[in-house]
Amino acid sequence: MNDKLMLMIPGPTPVPEAALLALAKHPIGHRTGEFSNILAEVTENLKWLHQTQSDVLMLNVSGTGAVEAGIINFLSPGDRVLVGSNGKFGERWVEISQAYGLNVEEVKVEWGKPLDPEVFAQKLQADTQKEIKAVIITHSETSTGVLNDLETINRHVKEHGEALIIVDAVTSLGAFNLPVDTWGLDVVASGSQKGYMIPPGLGFVSVSPKAWEAYKTAKLPKYYLDLGKYRKAAAKNTTPFTPPVNMIVALHTTLRIMKEEGLESIFTRHERLKNATRAAVKGLNLPLFAADSYASPAITAVAPQGIEPDKIRSFMKKRFDIALAGGQDHLSNKIFRIGHLGFVSDRDILSCIASLEVTLRELGYEDFTPGSGVAAAAKVFTD
Amino acid sequence: MNDKLMLMIPGPTPVPEAALLALAKHPIGHRTGEFSNILAEVTENLKWLHQTQSDVLMLNVSGTGAVEAGIINFLSPGDRVLVGSNGKFGERWVEISQAYGLNVEEVKVEWGKPLDPEVFAQKLQADTQKEIKAVIITHSETSTGVLNDLETINRHVKEHGEALIIVDAVTSLGAFNLPVDTWGLDVVASGSQKGYMIPPGLGFVSVSPKAWEAYKTAKLPKYYLDLGKYRKAAAKNTTPFTPPVNMIVALHTTLRIMKEEGLESIFTRHERLKNATRAAVKGLNLPLFAADSYASPAITAVAPQGIEPDKIRSFMKKRFDIALAGGQDHLSNKIFRIGHLGFVSDRDILSCIASLEVTLRELGYEDFTPGSGVAAAAKVFTD
Repeated sequence: MNDKLMLMIPGPTPVPEAALLALAKHPIGHRTGEFSNILAEVTENLKWLHQTQSDVLMLNVSGTGAVEAGIINFLSPGDRVLVGSNGKFGERWVEISQAYGLNVEEVKVEWGKPLDPEVFAQKLQADTQKEIKAVIITHSETSTGVLNDLETINRHVKEHGEALIIVDAVTSLGAFNLPVDTWGLDVVASGSQKGYMIPPGLGFVSVSPKAWEAYKTAKLPKYYLDLGKYRKAAAKNTTPFTPPVNMIVALHTTLRIMKEEGLESIFTRHERLKNATRAAVKGLNLPLFAADSYASPAITAVAPQGIEPDKIRSFMKKRFDIALAGGQDHLSNKIFRIGHLGFVSDRDILSCIASLEVTLRELGYEDFTPGSGVAAAAKVFTD
Repeated sequence: MNDKLMLMIPGPTPVPEAALLALAKHPIGHRTGEFSNILAEVTENLKWLHQTQSDVLMLNVSGTGAVEAGIINFLSPGDRVLVGSNGKFGERWVEISQAYGLNVEEVKVEWGKPLDPEVFAQKLQADTQKEIKAVIITHSETSTGVLNDLETINRHVKEHGEALIIVDAVTSLGAFNLPVDTWGLDVVASGSQKGYMIPPGLGFVSVSPKAWEAYKTAKLPKYYLDLGKYRKAAAKNTTPFTPPVNMIVALHTTLRIMKEEGLESIFTRHERLKNATRAAVKGLNLPLFAADSYASPAITAVAPQGIEPDKIRSFMKKRFDIALAGGQDHLSNKIFRIGHLGFVSDRDILSCIASLEVTLRELGYEDFTPGSGVAAAAKVFTD
């Protein structure tokens, strides 16, 4: 059957019907009281989602644009930055930092392994001259399904005192508890097609008072990505540039849905989806790419042996219309990734695993007892 | 009656039902053959719309983001640029050029008057050292309804030989004949919520071979707005960053609608809408803000005397659910603007003018024969 696509990739993620219908409404003028009221509620709910009293700004960009804004608004040419790199996105933040002439020290770890907080501790402690202006960390590395230990790394940044912590939370925000104010996260960037449950098109950046202090003297050039302009406009419930009206109306809808579910329930659900997916993969005797102790709540990467990941993905798509993600760069056809982020239910995991069982059998992989994947997921859901 | 909004502002513009329904489809994965096929057709149709064989790139940004990309990809710090400025958007391109440390010469004219091509000719001829690297021009100035004489200014740029011509065509593309290759326009930027007939959210930039040559040595920092990345990805029918999938699916729909109408018919329709609107405004004895000889095909600005523009707009909205645009900055409450851009029909102009007649009467303005506005518009439509 066609036209019955099930998205199990780490973005775009599934979108609730109410948000799709909101997208399809005739656009309204963006300089109107009606739109200002929508913006005001969206802004309040974004702060709720970020657990912050400070600003959360909304840009018409992808997640990469949001992270770039999060970097370039608070730094000047030649500033020293530490950038964690253990996957495709960590590498991208290194590239952005270099493109803007920052003095980049890449803290590199093999893809699939987590960043070591101790390495950051040592570098930060050694920096007695306080030359390090920012530490840039990917929280959930989408390319590998690794969740970096942001809380501990951030503690070391706080001990340093000078450096800002800038976080790519693109696939962790709305999936994992990220208390921006409690932890004191200076800049947190994310994108709409993930935990927000709407299509791609919007980026978000939260900014702490300390980061706004750094903004005052930051000299990297910017205009469209100048967060000061967004802050100034947001204070008047408007936007500096024509906003993607329909996307914001859809976001208005999904933020209400998220508030109704509640932060605790959202995080618990993602933890449960992760645990069920991982239990199922183990039940099928397939190797998980990242260990349990640092597994992302949003994406599970699987590294099958003796059976090509891309064949599994292709079969799943053709036979069941389930979209799984492949590996990126050198992990191409070495792993496949199951997204369980955003508008994903327990039932979706069961559907996916049951279909995966059929797929594996059809492709000649028989190293599991039929039903063992579904049974393992079911056990997590019934416990 | 509520929920019967008629958008007569210069963006967002009305969206055809087919595009709204396309927006409401479940998103699909952006790294799939299905999406690549859509991108391939969209790219071809964008070239058709731009009348170019060179690249037209698509970014997840507003019109301002597109113009910024159009400027910063081809220049280096300290480069001398001439920027035409006769409205809010011209002023914005001056600000962007300054924010990036370009050596900006502003060619300023009063709001509501057109740029004088002769001034550009003189400055370009005087530049025997060929220091001017770019001339940045707003084609249709959205804030005033003035159409600048791009064709003549561009001819002077061509005589100079060195400088690139960079065009803000945000409210002219898809409304006015803009033969990119025939004229030799190096960079043309536009946005989705205008002639493209979809909501805001996408920006477009066409790039000539000469501009790509300049790109090679351009040193302004960029990453998300780096057009080279978009070009490289487009060659493989993909995108460098997660694209706004639903918006592109909607664009896929409207570009087909536009092709069916045909370029000639689209331009003729906008010319007719402009002429009818202006004839009607004259029929009502209201002053037009820009003269006929340089009137935008997309927006007509009206400067009523003895009756507040904002009262007219407010009454039109409340009584007829018609949204008109106000004046910006110092033109606030000095003019109102009627958008007739994109998915606008002859009937829409008649509705708008007829409603405007009632509004004027109700607000005590009686300096016109009832029906004279509609009659004047009707005359244009029947001629």
